[in-house]
Amino acid sequence: MRMRKKAWAQPFLDAHPEFVIQNPEVWHGKWKELMPCEKLHVEIGCGKGDYFIGMAKQFPQDAFVAIERDSNVGAVAAKKALGDLSSNTRMVVADASNIEHWFGDKEVDIIHLNFSDPWPKSSHSKRRLSHGNFVSQYNRMLADDGEIQMKTDNQKLFEFSLMEFSRLNWLLVDVSVDYRRTEQPDVMTEYESRFVSLNQPIYRLVVRKKENK
Amino acid sequence: MRMRKKAWAQPFLDAHPEFVIQNPEVWHGKWKELMPCEKLHVEIGCGKGDYFIGMAKQFPQDAFVAIERDSNVGAVAAKKALGDLSSNTRMVVADASNIEHWFGDKEVDIIHLNFSDPWPKSSHSKRRLSHGNFVSQYNRMLADDGEIQMKTDNQKLFEFSLMEFSRLNWLLVDVSVDYRRTEQPDVMTEYESRFVSLNQPIYRLVVRKKENK
Repeated sequence: MRMRKKAWAQPFLDAHPEFVIQNPEVWHGKWKELMPCEKLHVEIGCGKGDYFIGMAKQFPQDAFVAIERDSNVGAVAAKKALGDLSSNTRMVVADASNIEHWFGDKEVDIIHLNFSDPWPKSSHSKRRLSHGNFVSQYNRMLADDGEIQMKTDNQKLFEFSLMEFSRLNWLLVDVSVDYRRTEQPDVMTEYESRFVSLNQPIYRLVVRKKENK
Repeated sequence: MRMRKKAWAQPFLDAHPEFVIQNPEVWHGKWKELMPCEKLHVEIGCGKGDYFIGMAKQFPQDAFVAIERDSNVGAVAAKKALGDLSSNTRMVVADASNIEHWFGDKEVDIIHLNFSDPWPKSSHSKRRLSHGNFVSQYNRMLADDGEIQMKTDNQKLFEFSLMEFSRLNWLLVDVSVDYRRTEQPDVMTEYESRFVSLNQPIYRLVVRKKENK
């Protein structure tokens, strides 16, 4: 999601180091000390933050680390979360391409990928958050019974992701080609609502590590 | 696909034993002797036959065995194929639940499942042609580089099939949630055309055995 440059964004992020974590590698293996919780969730590409903020309220026993690359968008999310702060959320405003340095082995319980940039050109496929280069990092970060939950409106990203997880030997535990055809427990963002109101399907998959990996 | 009972159906099928194979287990391991070919295709649930008849014309170097459980439907397909007979097709009008007895190990190159009955009740899931009980039979019948190609308009059957093939450790080599959004080389049946004209998506997957299975 692109947004116009905001002059206040970076100063705002810098002014809230207790919430916008500057050096996430410092917390490598210690996120559950920072935020005691049942399950640690990580959302990569949180956009304006509606999803993790809503989920953090719905699951107060869990903790959420939300990552956003774009500081202009991330600042909107941070402002919203801070105005509505619960102790079980933190943000990292940075590129996630080396995300495995931020989390210890098997530290994370659920990774959320919501409406990620599809990077439609095949020459950009490595930037997709479900590309093998990312997935092998998720594999290290995720608990043995951990899972990746992915939603998208983009057909080609969904198809690519199914094939990529299959190639990498993950178990597809849930899949829907029209996730909102029935009521669902999770938070629907503004972006998602727009697609649903246009009768465009939301695609979703959930994968787990295979035992024999 | 259900059809009214036709008095002529069974007598017609019985009258053409050279085309409608009565005891397919006799040809176990020998189908390529019966029909010399590059690739042996098997379509399970051929309905009125448009798909295999069209495919057999398009791929004259290959051979096709089309299976249909319902004799009233199968007779329509047989009549069409016989009026338009090419030496590279045969039919079996019988229930495929013991299909592995009809084909030798690794004898088949491509299995086609087109718009199979979704059997929506979970108590009927074993009857779905992508249920593990069938898939393990396909596994034995298929050549090492063989594949299963499945198309359906039914979301739940598609979702079930993706999860079932994943659980059984097959490799998803191609997937589409809207197969007809671009032009495709394979034959579109009357049934499929109807869905496409209503702008309803056709779902498709192609799976292969994994090398390490």
